[in-house]
Amino acid sequence: MSKSINVAVYETHGNPADVLDVETQPWPTPSPDEAVVQMRAAPINPADLNQIEGKYPVRPQLPATPGFEGAGVVVDVGKSVKDLTAGALVILPHNLGTWREAVAVKASALVIVPPGIGPVHAAMLKINPMTAWRLLHDYVDLKSGDWLIQNAANSAAGRAVIQIARNLGYKTVNVVRREELIDELRAEGGDVVLVDEENLREEVRNATGNAPIRLGLNAVGGGSALRLANTLAPESTIVTFGAMSLQPLKIPNGLLIFKDLRFRGIWINKWYDNATMQERMDAFRPLFEMAKRGLLKTKVEKSYPLSEAKAAVANAAQGKRSGKIIFEFGE
Amino acid sequence: MSKSINVAVYETHGNPADVLDVETQPWPTPSPDEAVVQMRAAPINPADLNQIEGKYPVRPQLPATPGFEGAGVVVDVGKSVKDLTAGALVILPHNLGTWREAVAVKASALVIVPPGIGPVHAAMLKINPMTAWRLLHDYVDLKSGDWLIQNAANSAAGRAVIQIARNLGYKTVNVVRREELIDELRAEGGDVVLVDEENLREEVRNATGNAPIRLGLNAVGGGSALRLANTLAPESTIVTFGAMSLQPLKIPNGLLIFKDLRFRGIWINKWYDNATMQERMDAFRPLFEMAKRGLLKTKVEKSYPLSEAKAAVANAAQGKRSGKIIFEFGE
Repeated sequence: MSKSINVAVYETHGNPADVLDVETQPWPTPSPDEAVVQMRAAPINPADLNQIEGKYPVRPQLPATPGFEGAGVVVDVGKSVKDLTAGALVILPHNLGTWREAVAVKASALVIVPPGIGPVHAAMLKINPMTAWRLLHDYVDLKSGDWLIQNAANSAAGRAVIQIARNLGYKTVNVVRREELIDELRAEGGDVVLVDEENLREEVRNATGNAPIRLGLNAVGGGSALRLANTLAPESTIVTFGAMSLQPLKIPNGLLIFKDLRFRGIWINKWYDNATMQERMDAFRPLFEMAKRGLLKTKVEKSYPLSEAKAAVANAAQGKRSGKIIFEFGE
Repeated sequence: MSKSINVAVYETHGNPADVLDVETQPWPTPSPDEAVVQMRAAPINPADLNQIEGKYPVRPQLPATPGFEGAGVVVDVGKSVKDLTAGALVILPHNLGTWREAVAVKASALVIVPPGIGPVHAAMLKINPMTAWRLLHDYVDLKSGDWLIQNAANSAAGRAVIQIARNLGYKTVNVVRREELIDELRAEGGDVVLVDEENLREEVRNATGNAPIRLGLNAVGGGSALRLANTLAPESTIVTFGAMSLQPLKIPNGLLIFKDLRFRGIWINKWYDNATMQERMDAFRPLFEMAKRGLLKTKVEKSYPLSEAKAAVANAAQGKRSGKIIFEFGE
């Protein structure tokens, strides 16, 4: 254990590769109710880049350390901490910045990861699989055999939706932009995989035998969201959790008035903040069970040491990737 | 009582003034469970014109008689009809076409209007005041003193919203397009009346003392709906029930994801179809109480006899009116 740590820091909002630096800070000391966690893995999510750019709805006090997600190992605990001992792999909350080698954090805010799940795997369960879990539980009361539809099915959240839906017995229509993803997402468990195009509605009808679809999951916005909405049964709900196209939803009034579609959205970090630890664990427990069976693994394109933070965020900002960019920290 | 009646009929969809004709039909004879109602008043609503044009989501079998709303007097009852006697003023259901001098209708589908409410008044309670009632009851749990906001506040539904909200103790922000309506709607009971413009959000904040507004009512669509949405507190609901601008809603993804706004819609005829008579009466009873006090009166611009149906629909199709066009039938 060194006496100092590397920490990613930005002092002004701007292009991440320009404004992000790595600085040295003293090794953290725990308050009585805190644990010190040595970070093991932390991904770069789109929301992290948005926050550095100043485009995220919550702006941190500057200078700030980015990172909404990550996992590490407890190496020290304050004197009033119970139920947590050195060596435990834990998932961190999202309000302290995970892009740092170590952090002192309230022990009660940590989620202990059960054995059988590695740090990289654990570091990417709190945002995308948790979003997928909420999308499948909080909006429409689905039963085994029911259908749902999602766009951006190839995203980390989309793949988690496929796996969790399959686990719950729901059937998925998965909409993607590129034909070469069809076989891959079918292998992942997607029941139907279709390329997004104007006649999507008819293609969905044919592929599902005209089954009613009561839940739509939208991470694209714009025309894709409307094509998705048009495949839904009356009184269905479409939940927006991403905006890859950067285009607003365009909703013909008739879809609201006559078809009674309901348009909702979810911000997973806000859900997490408002949830009790009990509510969080009610979702983490089944997610951990799936993870132990090798599911809910987010694809990684490249991992970087924290010292290469600038190169890492530059890579993450590129559109064309086949997986996440993550930080891995030495043990 | 004549042995034949005049009935408005169209045989093909098209421009109402072109395709609508008045024909003679035999005086109706009631089945055992039916009553014969002699019509007294029936308005021309936008949905009536849309259905004649073939633009309404439900297409009738042709030839068809228009008219979703109206009131008349019971003049004859079938032999198994109880609880309904000749002379009762009744509100008609919307599936038989009210633009006719008389009609045989299932007695159980009629709503008896209590004394003290005239036929013209009664004929326009089922769509706009009922829509207003549902808008104020089915989406957000408002408490006395809470604010809501609506556009198209000068419409028949908008004025009903003002009066019902006032009756329930809710405060209204009313958005209109023309400044000259401000005094009129204030006199009607509107707490705040504002002209729709780009800085609506700030104007609303100033006028309400920055009170949270959790319900938005949209009958315009397009930019107006978005300006309305931007005045709402997080986790609020905006309900669409009209589309005067003919423009779709354009919803930035962030309003769904980060602000957690919920977009809904209502189609009052569908609500009415799905409701039990008990549920309908739970709304009609308080609406009747208000009507007896002289409230919920829809402004009439001009009334026509049914024989002038072509001229009536031509007038109703014009945008610039100060009230409804209605049919009044001889006693």
